[in-house]
Amino acid sequence: MAPKNAFYAQSGGVTAVINATACGVLETARLHTDKIGKVFAGKNGIIGALKEELIDTSLLSSSLVGQLRHTPAGAFGSCRYKLKGLKENREEYERLIAVFEAHNIGYFFYNGGGDSQDTANKVSQISQEMGYPITCIGIPKTVDNDLPFTDCCPGFGSVAKYVAISTLEASLDVASMAASSTKVFILEVMGRHAGWIAAAGALAQPVASGAPHIILFPEIPFQQADFLQKVQTIVKSKGYCVIVVSEGTQHPDGKFLAESGLRDAFGHAQLGGVAPYLAQMIKSELGLKNHWAVADYLQRAARHIASQTDVDQAYALGKSAVEFAIAGKNAVMPIVVRDSDSPYRWHIDEVSLSKVANVEKTVPREFITEDGYGITDACRKYLLPLIAGEAYPPYENGLPQYVKMPLDTVEKKLKEAFAV
Amino acid sequence: MAPKNAFYAQSGGVTAVINATACGVLETARLHTDKIGKVFAGKNGIIGALKEELIDTSLLSSSLVGQLRHTPAGAFGSCRYKLKGLKENREEYERLIAVFEAHNIGYFFYNGGGDSQDTANKVSQISQEMGYPITCIGIPKTVDNDLPFTDCCPGFGSVAKYVAISTLEASLDVASMAASSTKVFILEVMGRHAGWIAAAGALAQPVASGAPHIILFPEIPFQQADFLQKVQTIVKSKGYCVIVVSEGTQHPDGKFLAESGLRDAFGHAQLGGVAPYLAQMIKSELGLKNHWAVADYLQRAARHIASQTDVDQAYALGKSAVEFAIAGKNAVMPIVVRDSDSPYRWHIDEVSLSKVANVEKTVPREFITEDGYGITDACRKYLLPLIAGEAYPPYENGLPQYVKMPLDTVEKKLKEAFAV
Repeated sequence: MAPKNAFYAQSGGVTAVINATACGVLETARLHTDKIGKVFAGKNGIIGALKEELIDTSLLSSSLVGQLRHTPAGAFGSCRYKLKGLKENREEYERLIAVFEAHNIGYFFYNGGGDSQDTANKVSQISQEMGYPITCIGIPKTVDNDLPFTDCCPGFGSVAKYVAISTLEASLDVASMAASSTKVFILEVMGRHAGWIAAAGALAQPVASGAPHIILFPEIPFQQADFLQKVQTIVKSKGYCVIVVSEGTQHPDGKFLAESGLRDAFGHAQLGGVAPYLAQMIKSELGLKNHWAVADYLQRAARHIASQTDVDQAYALGKSAVEFAIAGKNAVMPIVVRDSDSPYRWHIDEVSLSKVANVEKTVPREFITEDGYGITDACRKYLLPLIAGEAYPPYENGLPQYVKMPLDTVEKKLKEAFAV
Repeated sequence: MAPKNAFYAQSGGVTAVINATACGVLETARLHTDKIGKVFAGKNGIIGALKEELIDTSLLSSSLVGQLRHTPAGAFGSCRYKLKGLKENREEYERLIAVFEAHNIGYFFYNGGGDSQDTANKVSQISQEMGYPITCIGIPKTVDNDLPFTDCCPGFGSVAKYVAISTLEASLDVASMAASSTKVFILEVMGRHAGWIAAAGALAQPVASGAPHIILFPEIPFQQADFLQKVQTIVKSKGYCVIVVSEGTQHPDGKFLAESGLRDAFGHAQLGGVAPYLAQMIKSELGLKNHWAVADYLQRAARHIASQTDVDQAYALGKSAVEFAIAGKNAVMPIVVRDSDSPYRWHIDEVSLSKVANVEKTVPREFITEDGYGITDACRKYLLPLIAGEAYPPYENGLPQYVKMPLDTVEKKLKEAFAV
């Protein structure tokens, strides 16, 4: 009997290393052609499965597949699309199973955050109920580092490294200028609910003479008067102040700072931007000249300065996902387990998808200093190994040689189209 | 007779490679102790000379000096301080000469943009008039790439590389997400009057499947209706649109877009930010989901991905400045002359400071496509060699090992303090 095919999809916001995970999946599957036939990738994630838009990765040369390891973003396309609960929309799950059955797919590898693990878990259950059992393995990915059980999430280490380095470099810049010019620099980073990325900015401190001086976490309610007082004190004593702020920082009433009052010329609330909001506050309340940056996609796509730890783990998790499937495991997710901090040692273990789904791991209070504006030694010890090593991509003509995948899809086998 | 000492100062906005120039100055001066005694660095630039705050670089180990080559920002501090004209403020020039004379300084190396070259030129003239002739050599530096005569300005190549890579990476990110999420990405870059940095974003195009699709230059008046039409067309045909916008982009009436109407909750005009302005416009006029980033200091401090060409030229210009001084030249600036595009070959020549002062080199019209939204092949040919090569700094524990200079100043010899 020919082995079952597999389906692999990328889900949610992409990262600098999610393609390294794809590389791990594809390269490992190619070593086990007795167990896994073709690996189809979903064009634009799970939407590709629903619309029966499948990319046959067996057509990709091993060189192309290998280059995924150093290419950022989602090579097959990703999507923000959460399958509803089974009761609300059984049709979607039935469609998935129908597509999988039509293409002889017996393995489902879903590479994403908490929502995706939930979906993978549901697909596993429903496929059994429907008499076409599918082996479902979730693979963790999220720059926010907010998945439980795993020591960290692939994607996070590289953002953390980018943010630490960018904070360091901007801190040296403002230190050079502060005597006669800019006194405050503000860097806005991602992290809607968890402050892991903002925390990583603090790693710059030993090289940057103590900067950044203030970290604003979503976990700590923003106290405007206290914050302004602190900025003023720091500028007085150090000559300048560097702030790393999470986009998810909130007022005590739970309202995001980013939604606090910027209006366009017509009075419409402006789209986000906590950095310009703080910049305006510091300018008008303290009269201090400042500069601000918003890293946005730059941070999570920054493969040019990816962490070697992160790339290694992203690949290993993809590899393990396939090995788990071959070993007959189902409805599990490979995780990173930390064996020691220094030297950093880790191995891959597993957790049941039912335990992972929809649990969010925020920065624990003991990782944040008592005043709420910094990280503790425990946090630093946790973070440091995750940014270790520089996994440089190859360059040509001054630019990284990122690979572009052909996104042609295979012939459809189902008659019905499916609207998503 | 003991040789005269030298004074070196960094001026204006700092860069990823201005310290490489400092390294070139200091290392070269150390090879010629028969001609140049100590090299004093101005603490916080020319303000250090006016206030008689001089750092004796002869106390720095050769290892420390060597590490300047890979350290971004201004190691001795910089400043935004333009000396007035001779008639308006002769006092300042007299003070400079007095400080130089007190410390037996016969060489003045001024590392900055157009204003600084003007100052260096004036100091040369006045010192002669005052009977204490000083050899004045300007050394080019500006991320804006707006100095005349030189093929390019040190600092620019590294910003260009950072912006090209960041644009490339963010383009891959939005391309991955566009099917179900973000359709437009906007990156705001520096360049108040010249669009060189924005132009560099276009270098991403060959690797990023044609992105960025729109470049907005300060040189081309912004046409809102035409721009929105173009964004819509591109999103329709490509699925997404990437925009690189110069902070200096202006409305046809000359008003900066960045000053066009964002208000805080109290109705105060908001501080800059052309990216959020465009984001709001695209959201409200076209209803397209978008993301935006503002690179600010991150771009000019990004030593972690500096261009090797840039670092080499920055060093060579510092070295040549000292060699010019020793050779008896005065009131000149070393420049980069391009011998060929590919392979890129260049050599150092000189230009009289009187010719450089206050001339601004913007992006010529023939470097911008007819529609005003892209760069021509001539521009690409000009830019490409400037981002060639990756001059990686050394790392430890996941972070670049940038050096911190001791900033102790020598004992003052003048009785009077000087207020600046």
